[in-house]
Amino acid sequence: MRMSPFEDHIEFDLLGIGNAIVDVLAETEDTFLTAHDLVKGSMTLVDAPMAERLYHAMGPAIEVSGGSCANTVAGAAMLGARAAYIGKTAPDQLGEIFGHDLRALGVSYRTPFGRPEPPTARCFVLVSADAQRTMATYLGACVELGPEDIDPDLVARARVLYLEGYLWDPPRAKDALRYAMQAAKDADRTVALSLSDTFCVERHRVEFQELVSGPVDIMFANEAEALAISQQSTLSGAVEWLTGRCALAIITRGAKGAMVISADGVHEVAAIAPAAVVDTTGAGDLFAAGFLFGYTRGWDPVVCARAGAAAASEVIAHFGARPERDLIALVEHAIQHKEQG
Amino acid sequence: MRMSPFEDHIEFDLLGIGNAIVDVLAETEDTFLTAHDLVKGSMTLVDAPMAERLYHAMGPAIEVSGGSCANTVAGAAMLGARAAYIGKTAPDQLGEIFGHDLRALGVSYRTPFGRPEPPTARCFVLVSADAQRTMATYLGACVELGPEDIDPDLVARARVLYLEGYLWDPPRAKDALRYAMQAAKDADRTVALSLSDTFCVERHRVEFQELVSGPVDIMFANEAEALAISQQSTLSGAVEWLTGRCALAIITRGAKGAMVISADGVHEVAAIAPAAVVDTTGAGDLFAAGFLFGYTRGWDPVVCARAGAAAASEVIAHFGARPERDLIALVEHAIQHKEQG
Repeated sequence: MRMSPFEDHIEFDLLGIGNAIVDVLAETEDTFLTAHDLVKGSMTLVDAPMAERLYHAMGPAIEVSGGSCANTVAGAAMLGARAAYIGKTAPDQLGEIFGHDLRALGVSYRTPFGRPEPPTARCFVLVSADAQRTMATYLGACVELGPEDIDPDLVARARVLYLEGYLWDPPRAKDALRYAMQAAKDADRTVALSLSDTFCVERHRVEFQELVSGPVDIMFANEAEALAISQQSTLSGAVEWLTGRCALAIITRGAKGAMVISADGVHEVAAIAPAAVVDTTGAGDLFAAGFLFGYTRGWDPVVCARAGAAAASEVIAHFGARPERDLIALVEHAIQHKEQG
Repeated sequence: MRMSPFEDHIEFDLLGIGNAIVDVLAETEDTFLTAHDLVKGSMTLVDAPMAERLYHAMGPAIEVSGGSCANTVAGAAMLGARAAYIGKTAPDQLGEIFGHDLRALGVSYRTPFGRPEPPTARCFVLVSADAQRTMATYLGACVELGPEDIDPDLVARARVLYLEGYLWDPPRAKDALRYAMQAAKDADRTVALSLSDTFCVERHRVEFQELVSGPVDIMFANEAEALAISQQSTLSGAVEWLTGRCALAIITRGAKGAMVISADGVHEVAAIAPAAVVDTTGAGDLFAAGFLFGYTRGWDPVVCARAGAAAASEVIAHFGARPERDLIALVEHAIQHKEQG
């Protein structure tokens, strides 16, 4: 049965599906990264023994709920969006922490625990003195996510379905995603995708190209990911490749701001610089949070991008990928400030 | 056999024994504290069901290894002290986190895990907008600590034995402490005690009075704890009561600085104000870290107190009770600055 797209069937602004991960954040030095074959600024998948070795070698850490898509959902919820999340954890302490931190923000999160082993996923986030972060992810329980975790009715009740590219790494998740995207399309919902990471794009380029040319309505990528998916060597080449493929393509460029590519043309939006950049973890996730929040409110895409820039500027001003300050005030300020300017 | 106090038998500057706890930090509002019968600024012991209820009701959190004494040991290790720690955790993820974070600082920590249940202790640290913290502690595996966890040879090999008053709460720990203090005295080592918390002093006043008049050489207390142990209503009354009871009594007074009470008289040391006070959790713990580090280096008690003030000023400038910045530089600056002044 095809769901009606009418407003009264919408219960959530945003439904995210992602790898449910607890971040383990520590400061690091470049020598540590090279000694452990980690590429600065990127995300590397590690197996259980490598995760063990890394943890043993790294400095004291703090644990914060993470996961790219979950960070976005958390940020959107803090802005006032009605949000839901699907992602797999194990019945262990990190799984309890992950669930608590989402639910405490009012996010509807009901994915049942997987088996006790493998344990809840963790991501070692190694933050350098220059605020760059290098990630090593042990997927753990995330590999258990499958189509059985997708409730098509829930997908139909959410205005936007948001997926992270990282989900193409665990083996069965892509079946879950195809099922979810079909449910979203059947109900005339918007499908948004973050490309997540350059290496992730390299691993799944053909599929990502098909997605962006097909079911995906809104694509988020940073500059390197945009070059990787389009196999172009210049930003203008990537912009040209992306134009017309999906309704909205957003390229985030750090301090250089963001580009919004649509049928309407290409618009550039300035970044918002915090007093000091401490840790860039979560910048892309929170940009998407601000953008998608605005989108569900019917804002112009350029205004959405300003909201994204405001949310990103908050999260890079401190350690960790979840916002700590009053996001609503920051986003309102960013939008009003620009409208007056 | 009585150990020789000679230098070549000393392997550690500091051995701490404490409740091994992972902190669960979240921002809070005063209405939340009153709704859950928590007294602002104090530490309340909670049982498992109450811990569950509190966690369910509180906002998103971050997890950081804590435990008053372990914070002190961590800070001393960051300053360059050779440090060891004894405290009980369960074989679970929080227990692994606690152990990792101490060992990653070079602290020798070999206490075997307890049973799987009760789980590793956690302390809900609720931080108010005015930077005050209110704590609710579920002792969990800490109740398993007993004399069998104390290695008297280890005690004899450490210059200072440092105990937290909170250890008088779990039932069998006090037997462990008496055993450890005896081993320290037999080897002519220094015994230091933090009074931990006003309510903790109320719960164990007579024992704490005996300790301070007996085996304890160095006592740390804040103003309220000093009034509580001495049963005086004025600071001068507390100072008078403390004078002559132990070799060194230190009263920390937040922004008002610290008082060092010894046979040499009473000396006041100014506090060091950070740019902004974010979270006072760990202020007393880090004061003790700086002080004891200086003590093991043979510094004058007033200089030790300056080092303590510097370490405390670092930890109150950010969320969490473990230092994030270069403590050595901060302490060196505080000492040199004063010597020139």
